[in-house]
Amino acid sequence: MLASWVPVPADSHFPLNNLPYGVFSTATSPLPRPGVAIGDSVLDLAAVQRAGLLSGPVLSAANNCFQQPVLNAFMALGRPAWAEARATLLRLLSADEGVLRDDVALRSRLLLPRSEVRMHLPAAIGDYTDFYASREHATNIGIMFRGRENALQPNWLHLPVGYHGRASSIVVSGTDVRRPRGQVVRGTAQPPVPSFEASAALDYELEVGCFIGPGNELGCPIPVERAAEHIFGYVLVNDWSARDIQRWEYVPLGPFTSKNFATSISPWIVTPDALEPFACSAPPQDDPQPLPYLRQRPGERTNYDIQLEVAIQPSSSSSGCSTEGGGGGSAGDAGGESSGQPTVVTRSNLRTMYWTLPQMIAHHTAGGCPLRPGDLLASGTLSCEGPLGAGCLQEATWGGSRPVRLGDGSERTFLLDGDTVVMSGYCQGEGYRVGFGECRGMVLPAAEL
Amino acid sequence: MLASWVPVPADSHFPLNNLPYGVFSTATSPLPRPGVAIGDSVLDLAAVQRAGLLSGPVLSAANNCFQQPVLNAFMALGRPAWAEARATLLRLLSADEGVLRDDVALRSRLLLPRSEVRMHLPAAIGDYTDFYASREHATNIGIMFRGRENALQPNWLHLPVGYHGRASSIVVSGTDVRRPRGQVVRGTAQPPVPSFEASAALDYELEVGCFIGPGNELGCPIPVERAAEHIFGYVLVNDWSARDIQRWEYVPLGPFTSKNFATSISPWIVTPDALEPFACSAPPQDDPQPLPYLRQRPGERTNYDIQLEVAIQPSSSSSGCSTEGGGGGSAGDAGGESSGQPTVVTRSNLRTMYWTLPQMIAHHTAGGCPLRPGDLLASGTLSCEGPLGAGCLQEATWGGSRPVRLGDGSERTFLLDGDTVVMSGYCQGEGYRVGFGECRGMVLPAAEL
Ligand SMILES: [Ca+2]
Ligand SMILES: [Ca+2]
Ligand SMILES: [Mg+2]
Ligand SMILES: [Mg+2]
Ligand code: NI
Repeated sequence: MLASWVPVPADSHFPLNNLPYGVFSTATSPLPRPGVAIGDSVLDLAAVQRAGLLSGPVLSAANNCFQQPVLNAFMALGRPAWAEARATLLRLLSADEGVLRDDVALRSRLLLPRSEVRMHLPAAIGDYTDFYASREHATNIGIMFRGRENALQPNWLHLPVGYHGRASSIVVSGTDVRRPRGQVVRGTAQPPVPSFEASAALDYELEVGCFIGPGNELGCPIPVERAAEHIFGYVLVNDWSARDIQRWEYVPLGPFTSKNFATSISPWIVTPDALEPFACSAPPQDDPQPLPYLRQRPGERTNYDIQLEVAIQPSSSSSGCSTEGGGGGSAGDAGGESSGQPTVVTRSNLRTMYWTLPQMIAHHTAGGCPLRPGDLLASGTLSCEGPLGAGCLQEATWGGSRPVRLGDGSERTFLLDGDTVVMSGYCQGEGYRVGFGECRGMVLPAAEL
Repeated sequence: MLASWVPVPADSHFPLNNLPYGVFSTATSPLPRPGVAIGDSVLDLAAVQRAGLLSGPVLSAANNCFQQPVLNAFMALGRPAWAEARATLLRLLSADEGVLRDDVALRSRLLLPRSEVRMHLPAAIGDYTDFYASREHATNIGIMFRGRENALQPNWLHLPVGYHGRASSIVVSGTDVRRPRGQVVRGTAQPPVPSFEASAALDYELEVGCFIGPGNELGCPIPVERAAEHIFGYVLVNDWSARDIQRWEYVPLGPFTSKNFATSISPWIVTPDALEPFACSAPPQDDPQPLPYLRQRPGERTNYDIQLEVAIQPSSSSSGCSTEGGGGGSAGDAGGESSGQPTVVTRSNLRTMYWTLPQMIAHHTAGGCPLRPGDLLASGTLSCEGPLGAGCLQEATWGGSRPVRLGDGSERTFLLDGDTVVMSGYCQGEGYRVGFGECRGMVLPAAEL
């Protein structure tokens, strides 16, 4: 662990090695502005910049980049600016640098307790794309729907399957998520008769997303070997999904209202520089080999060893509720504090993801589609081997047929009102962690009609 | 036709009755700003506002709404502002109003020849959604893939099927569109073996889109009976589609790179007020009736009688080329002027669209998805009865099996490099038209690798 004069608890996700970017505000200074997390503190980058402390050549020429309520301008500057900012911040916060450490007045303006800040979306997200890049996940879903022999669709090993998501409903961790109503088919009548109801199959999807830095022009693809230069950093993503709505609506154009009611992201964007020590290669892609526009050098380290976890924290009053009967109504007092004990229901890792983010970028832009700074690309549900390896309840409960048991004795096939889904993730270094913090959201009951 | 002191040619799409909004710039004043089209002229709304001529109470309080390079701020203001702006503009431009007509200096600053302006995207489009709302189109595509008995998917008559499109690749009419490369499967080998090639099945889709005015909060659906209040106005949409790429990629999450390389829109947004005389009811929805959240009053006039047309204009040198052999390479000099004669290949109408735009809005937001000012919702391919009723080549050529013949004797299954697709649309009043102008785009050859 790099030594900082800012206190960093031993198990903190935010040692000096990390320096993730986010956007925050405080009660006394409610204008959202960029900051970096360090230990239990936040360094106010707008104030750091105004104090003249970002004096390198690139950021001197872009001396407005942090005077904004989103990080898009900084994202657009690209690696030279990011490298300079990181070098400057590493120095300012290192144990033996006195300029901030020894100036009590300056320090108290620039360094704020993380417990007192409110986090916002880190970027204005122009477009959000979700992929389906985990082979374990696609295989399990495929077995469920088509049997083991035809688990993977014919295209799956040839291209990173993806679809356009909804940018307007992306919310930052901590935002409550209302159970959606939608069209579902309950019975087995033929032809099917839908009804309009609160989803009884609300699920989480554990994903990792990347924010785009510099974009590309319309008509100009990003080659896979240049794709990493376009990645500003990574966040955790919970792609909330209503399985019953999805099942009925998705043919033939894909998921729509089953996904567009909310997508939660963790507030701190962890950079490729911070993750570099944890880079690893993706699983081999040799049967079949990808087409040349998707081909990476064998062993190229484009995945990361990020330990990912999902816990469900029931509301304090939901103990013992069963999901039988479906719907959200049975979870008791969803308005109460979510103070039950969290139970870990998923343990996964980004390292086994089949299609890499550079491949997703190359595929996304292969026909000329422009990416813009602040666009979000998410991995799709990340599942892996192991007893808790399923990255969503659909898979963990095998389509709702094998409930998971929580620590309070209750069972879940899908989420109940009042449940809080807590995702977290970190890389384990020698004696330190580089982490993402949490991506959490509590399920509110469906709105009254 | 309402009489204006601005000359309006007899067949103009832009008489005083219309007053569509767009964003333009000029060579001498290159900052994009809002304007309205009238005859062969454009009235500069930023200049009108600065001249103090928008003096009604709503716009006086929003006196910056046209001092911007996009219409989002004006869109967000809602119907009271739109009604006031229209009333003011109808008066300023009416034949017997002298304030502009008689002030040569003022008039020459505010009123510009349309031939001298360059049009831009009228809004910053946060999210773009494409539907599939024409029963004729869905039926024909269904027959092609599944036969007459199973033409419509089971969900089609119950909900307006839609998917999220790509906002970043929406371009304004006149922008050339590069033929995309992508993964396609050429042979019939099993399992299929894809290759990465220029699309040989590039298509247009004739659609009408609506721009959203005031949006809704996350978690707060827009009821169908309030949806019309959220519609700022309408444009023509060409949802360019690469059918060979689409066929391979779309299972199970829908179209992605087959659509995200470009979507063209016409530059002038025609308002509900201008279209009101041409409002008509949609086809009956009684077998089955939609669920209550989608139900409109019988006979409610939520469609419009808009005559729509698509023409293909080959490049001057492509005469006689056949599409045999696929790809774009055979079209000759795609860099030359597109001076061949246009041939009308589609004649359709918005009036027969099955799912209405208010229903699309109600369905889109039913689970709580927020719409924002400037979002674009498109109808999906608009087909209707009649010999030229197919709204795309996929349908017109029955999957590429029955080429259409152009006026120069050449045939098309799909588009060739150098082809310009010209969409237009208007409502026919007694002695005047309220029109959309054109949505055009020329196909450029795929980029060199
Ligand atoms: Ca997902
Ligand atoms: Ca379409
Ligand atoms: Mg989502
Ligand atoms: Mg498109
Ligand atoms: Ni978008």
